[in-house]
Amino acid sequence: MSNSVNLETTSLVTGAAGFIGSHLVDALLARGERVIGLDNFTLGHRGNLTAALANPRFCLLEQDVNQAESCREAVVRELAGGKIGTVWHLAANSDIQAGGRNPDVDLQLTFLTTFHVLKLMEQLGWRRLVFASTSAIYGSLDAELREDSGPLFPVSNYGAMKLASEGAISAALERFLERAWICRFPNVVGGRATHGAIYDFIKKLRANPAELEVLGDGLQEKPYLHVSELVAAMLFIYDHAGDRLNCFNIAPEIGASTVRFMAEASVRAAAPGAGIRYTGGARGWVGDVPKFRYSTAKLRSLGWRARLSSDAAVELAIQENL
Amino acid sequence: MSNSVNLETTSLVTGAAGFIGSHLVDALLARGERVIGLDNFTLGHRGNLTAALANPRFCLLEQDVNQAESCREAVVRELAGGKIGTVWHLAANSDIQAGGRNPDVDLQLTFLTTFHVLKLMEQLGWRRLVFASTSAIYGSLDAELREDSGPLFPVSNYGAMKLASEGAISAALERFLERAWICRFPNVVGGRATHGAIYDFIKKLRANPAELEVLGDGLQEKPYLHVSELVAAMLFIYDHAGDRLNCFNIAPEIGASTVRFMAEASVRAAAPGAGIRYTGGARGWVGDVPKFRYSTAKLRSLGWRARLSSDAAVELAIQENL
Repeated sequence: MSNSVNLETTSLVTGAAGFIGSHLVDALLARGERVIGLDNFTLGHRGNLTAALANPRFCLLEQDVNQAESCREAVVRELAGGKIGTVWHLAANSDIQAGGRNPDVDLQLTFLTTFHVLKLMEQLGWRRLVFASTSAIYGSLDAELREDSGPLFPVSNYGAMKLASEGAISAALERFLERAWICRFPNVVGGRATHGAIYDFIKKLRANPAELEVLGDGLQEKPYLHVSELVAAMLFIYDHAGDRLNCFNIAPEIGASTVRFMAEASVRAAAPGAGIRYTGGARGWVGDVPKFRYSTAKLRSLGWRARLSSDAAVELAIQENL
Repeated sequence: MSNSVNLETTSLVTGAAGFIGSHLVDALLARGERVIGLDNFTLGHRGNLTAALANPRFCLLEQDVNQAESCREAVVRELAGGKIGTVWHLAANSDIQAGGRNPDVDLQLTFLTTFHVLKLMEQLGWRRLVFASTSAIYGSLDAELREDSGPLFPVSNYGAMKLASEGAISAALERFLERAWICRFPNVVGGRATHGAIYDFIKKLRANPAELEVLGDGLQEKPYLHVSELVAAMLFIYDHAGDRLNCFNIAPEIGASTVRFMAEASVRAAAPGAGIRYTGGARGWVGDVPKFRYSTAKLRSLGWRARLSSDAAVELAIQENL
């Protein structure tokens, strides 16, 4: 760091070069914080941090948090005697389907990253952790999904390893963590995305502007949040929720978007006139959850609500992904 | 195996030489099943299987399920072309306090064992799994603990890694598992125990028959189940619960036992006249849950209930541990 003043306000972001991580880095820097970013570039891209890298308050370390020794040495060297105030742990696999094909993917990238981040925090005496969790921990639970809903039986390895991470964080609060914020993300869309329906549709339409093949019957419906609002919600939760363990669902207030809507909007934006062919069936792929009701009552009570509807977030994201 | 008839009824028990595992092996053999036991002898003892080892339908393989290759080869060799009907996965750390001091213990023994058992099952096409879960997944939730209670924020690494295991099993049901039975154990007591309050008290009284030091104020209260009833409940659940994912709390019907009761009963049995000194405080150790209400309504509906009260189970176990 070029300046060693006020080191306790230094934040560490894991997965800093990823889709959501890079937007979070931008937002933390905009608040005037110092940020150390970690990324192993499995899924992240240096290009996502072009603006951040020009900021003297930002430093990017190419490190794999699962390589605990090397990672600790690099961070300690960079801190030069200072401490991390808050760790924002976003490093994870984000390709649920890849994790379905091979359980090692989510073991390594989605759970062991958390395990090693907690070890690093314990060793170095860092005590505040914000964690990127997911609605996938609820599995296909047929109920309104509130933060205290159960049972928690995820249907994807991704959801299972995020649930494992939540458990490890909860147990760490008994030992050394002072405070934790668990943010359960919905589907998130926006610029820099590397996966997901919008990303796939636009890629497919570029390859074949005549027809878009869509898995399933198009009726699957999920709430989509724009990444700018997700990051705003995370910061709001961090600023305003003061319990020892703070767990919040984050989602748009208005509606959910069907796959059909996303497909049609993608066609309108990327290849007007293309036909859409649905493969049929209620689920697009193993591990997918076709429909759910995600409660944001707790987050509304705290004082935050999303402004963009799910459909508006999707339309904005399509423009950003063109 | 000395006989290759009816191989589909062969059961595999992990942690077969452990406290509960060895009792389960005895019960499965008593039902006429063939059993292959796996144990790496981290916590298990060959002596627990003295009776079983004399049975030609039992075979014990000294294998670590985390050494996946070696374990798979040994089991495949033993099966000689046959298949495992049901896996009973009990291998785990059972010393919650040891796992609190070092998170690697429960990562390796409590979660990665499950992860590797699932991999083995997927590779070899075995589709039915009974899993030894725990009330510790509920953490210190202040509510009646039903199978669908939430949120699930364990306070021990042990509970976190059992929750992680449940999640991995749930996700595996979407891919290759046909059926799973998740049995959430309470505190279990009885012969062959290697940890726990009774075990500690008797060991302490042997070392010092004049005084028993007890951590906490003695008012912590938990339901204790005798291992014979636990095994009976597991078999009943396996025989009668036919959903794809079957999750059941197992606990005694009558009461819970205070640490004070266990201490006094231990003194009566092992060192009559010894004084009892309480160190004070509501919790005995980090990761312990001082008191909870554990619902067995679901198991009663299925048709099973424990006959021994918690206190009777404790008294029986003290006799068996003398």
